[in-house]
Amino acid sequence: MARDRQMRLGAFLMGVGHHVSAWLHPSANPRALTDLRHYVHLARVAEKAKFDAIFFADNVAMFGPPSELSARGAPVYYFDPLTLLAALAPQTDRIGLVATVSATYLPPYHLARKFSTLDHLSGGRAGWNCVTSASDAEARNFGLDHQYEHAHRYERAGEYLDVVKALWGSWEDGALLADREHGRYFDPGRVHPIKHDGRFFKVEGPLQLDRTPQGHPVIVQAGSSDDGIALAAATAELVFTAQQARDDAIAFRERLRNAAVANGREADDVLVLPGIMPFVARTREEALRLHDELQDLVDPRIGLGLASGLMGIDLSQYPLDGPLPGPAVTQGYQSRQKLFIDTARADGLTIRQLVARVVTARGHKTIVGTPVEVADLLEDWFVGGAADGFNIMGPTLPQGLEVFAELVVPELQRRGLFRTDYAGTTLREHLELPIPRTPAFATATK
Amino acid sequence: MARDRQMRLGAFLMGVGHHVSAWLHPSANPRALTDLRHYVHLARVAEKAKFDAIFFADNVAMFGPPSELSARGAPVYYFDPLTLLAALAPQTDRIGLVATVSATYLPPYHLARKFSTLDHLSGGRAGWNCVTSASDAEARNFGLDHQYEHAHRYERAGEYLDVVKALWGSWEDGALLADREHGRYFDPGRVHPIKHDGRFFKVEGPLQLDRTPQGHPVIVQAGSSDDGIALAAATAELVFTAQQARDDAIAFRERLRNAAVANGREADDVLVLPGIMPFVARTREEALRLHDELQDLVDPRIGLGLASGLMGIDLSQYPLDGPLPGPAVTQGYQSRQKLFIDTARADGLTIRQLVARVVTARGHKTIVGTPVEVADLLEDWFVGGAADGFNIMGPTLPQGLEVFAELVVPELQRRGLFRTDYAGTTLREHLELPIPRTPAFATATK
Repeated sequence: MARDRQMRLGAFLMGVGHHVSAWLHPSANPRALTDLRHYVHLARVAEKAKFDAIFFADNVAMFGPPSELSARGAPVYYFDPLTLLAALAPQTDRIGLVATVSATYLPPYHLARKFSTLDHLSGGRAGWNCVTSASDAEARNFGLDHQYEHAHRYERAGEYLDVVKALWGSWEDGALLADREHGRYFDPGRVHPIKHDGRFFKVEGPLQLDRTPQGHPVIVQAGSSDDGIALAAATAELVFTAQQARDDAIAFRERLRNAAVANGREADDVLVLPGIMPFVARTREEALRLHDELQDLVDPRIGLGLASGLMGIDLSQYPLDGPLPGPAVTQGYQSRQKLFIDTARADGLTIRQLVARVVTARGHKTIVGTPVEVADLLEDWFVGGAADGFNIMGPTLPQGLEVFAELVVPELQRRGLFRTDYAGTTLREHLELPIPRTPAFATATK
Repeated sequence: MARDRQMRLGAFLMGVGHHVSAWLHPSANPRALTDLRHYVHLARVAEKAKFDAIFFADNVAMFGPPSELSARGAPVYYFDPLTLLAALAPQTDRIGLVATVSATYLPPYHLARKFSTLDHLSGGRAGWNCVTSASDAEARNFGLDHQYEHAHRYERAGEYLDVVKALWGSWEDGALLADREHGRYFDPGRVHPIKHDGRFFKVEGPLQLDRTPQGHPVIVQAGSSDDGIALAAATAELVFTAQQARDDAIAFRERLRNAAVANGREADDVLVLPGIMPFVARTREEALRLHDELQDLVDPRIGLGLASGLMGIDLSQYPLDGPLPGPAVTQGYQSRQKLFIDTARADGLTIRQLVARVVTARGHKTIVGTPVEVADLLEDWFVGGAADGFNIMGPTLPQGLEVFAELVVPELQRRGLFRTDYAGTTLREHLELPIPRTPAFATATK
């Protein structure tokens, strides 16, 4: 590990909390989920604590058809994340703004332009979490009966990323002149059509905006399947992942770093951030109380539905107190299915027990403890090479983020693990990631 | 005319000014075009003057391939308009936020969700200017070699609007409960899949957001061709148009109002706002000086290119000092071609003379004069039934908007033609447009 290596912290925001019962807890204001002021507050709490970024996941559909059961879950993927981040940009100064947008149903020219706009408007703080849409419910909102199969989705996403990066590089640095004296708003020799003509996409370009303050927005990915790792190794700069065990997390990070090197990149060009759901309070008892209160509010059918959806296996067909079924072919979240099966096998869990465990944080790691205990675990994983930092998932929001910012961040700062102020102004600077090189087609045509 | 009928004013914003030479004028700050603060300032000037809305046009491509000639034009469609308006929403309180988004290359589910998000975030101030993409340059950024033909574009846009409105209505009023006591975040009996299965689109729904503060965003259209009028009569609440002559404007507005009534709507449910480019100053001489300075900066080749693009006819093939060619089949802007041909015939203009006239405001009406003279013309058109208000196009920005707000708005207010304060908080309230009814499928399944 390099000297002074600093932990990265993302504030993973989701409605009024990541816990599936968050909105039902007496401390929650369930209406906040649909109120811009809630998100402004969260962004400012995270920025004051010097987090690298705030982050929104996404899904372009409701979870299942409207029913009394689904009505017990709040619609956590409510606002369009990129539109929400644009509203938050001028309400904040430094913090990174990472939005999930699926590469499956939005034409790449639109995506490139929208994120370029966000990066310009925010002075270089945009990040794009590139995912592929993995549910039939989403497919049915976009003209299909079923989602694309897994390998097809990833092959398509790879080409999509090529197109988007080419568009982001279609204006060379300094191509925008605004030179009134010579009547040249831009230098036409430094603005290039991309003329992409591939298997899935045909895009002429150039983009209609110049290169952004970060070169281009930081590219984030969250796929941990084989296809996902291959794509991340080629293009991702930040990888969100769900890891339950320290050894597995070390192995995952090493595998990704090696794959990046095999792709001609530096190992440090890819940062790995597991999601962590901390139940933290000044005393262990208080932390445990919140955890238990939220768990007690979980309707077992909701838990079963959530676990079934994440695994791509309908668990309601099996006895609740029997073992988890073995692997099944899914076109959905392959890595999450594997994680759940591995966890159940390692600890000998029944379906009921597994659901109770994973429903809390959707497969992400849960910690219950004091600020020192939480900091100990984060330090242990960070120093041991299991993570470059963490995506912090408040079980309730804003409280879960507020208490982390107030109690855990100062503890990490005391240990020299986390910044006490921002050194730069862009997300890329916070993460110490390199500015992307100018694309080859630009230099080739000079 | 009803008593107390009030004029509607939109602030049509475009880079550092609508005049094609705006960025070259010594008063301009050409870098402002790419600076969020410029747009925040413009929005606040318009809001302080009690404009109904700010408005951004759009095009999803650069104008022509990069060349020394195209570099003389600033990239006026720079930021993604909806993303930009989201950033402006929390920087303003009352003013309407109208973004152009083409229905041609964005899946309708995305459009419905993004505008619903903007309407929620802004407390009910969103408007969508629904256009169809009319250039090959745009088509080539979205996988096509050529744009769709005109009639196909409009037929598709009609179905697109049906889908978007159905999605906006997929949550009935009051369907979002956030009822913690009974564990129901929404009422599943009041949230409806739309199950649209048409010629161009297949969309299951429901949307993942509840009905917006305005029922749904205000629907704006700008097409003035036969196809455009048919679509506007069926669905538009606000129509932007380019009109040179008062009589033509009266005829256009009457035709649209009658067509709306034939569609079972009230005539007053469609408001018509011609674009107006005012060169205004305390003296006529000063106003004329700015006009002439900007006109003198026009490169004749830029004017010819702009007029050719707007007409869908390559005018460079014809003698500059000869007559304008007759109508030609175009898949582009049909109504603009007709307007230019009619104008040239009425006034006996050569190509050179026509270009000099229309390049100023791209076919919109230009006024040069004192605040009283400008107010006289607006009042005459408004009272005479040629307009429900105007879309004000500052020749330079922010100056052109500032001077209109400072000198013309008070004159209109003195005459009782324009509000001195906002009566409501939503764009729909400013425009006194009705809240859309709940869609039939919602009531049918009750």
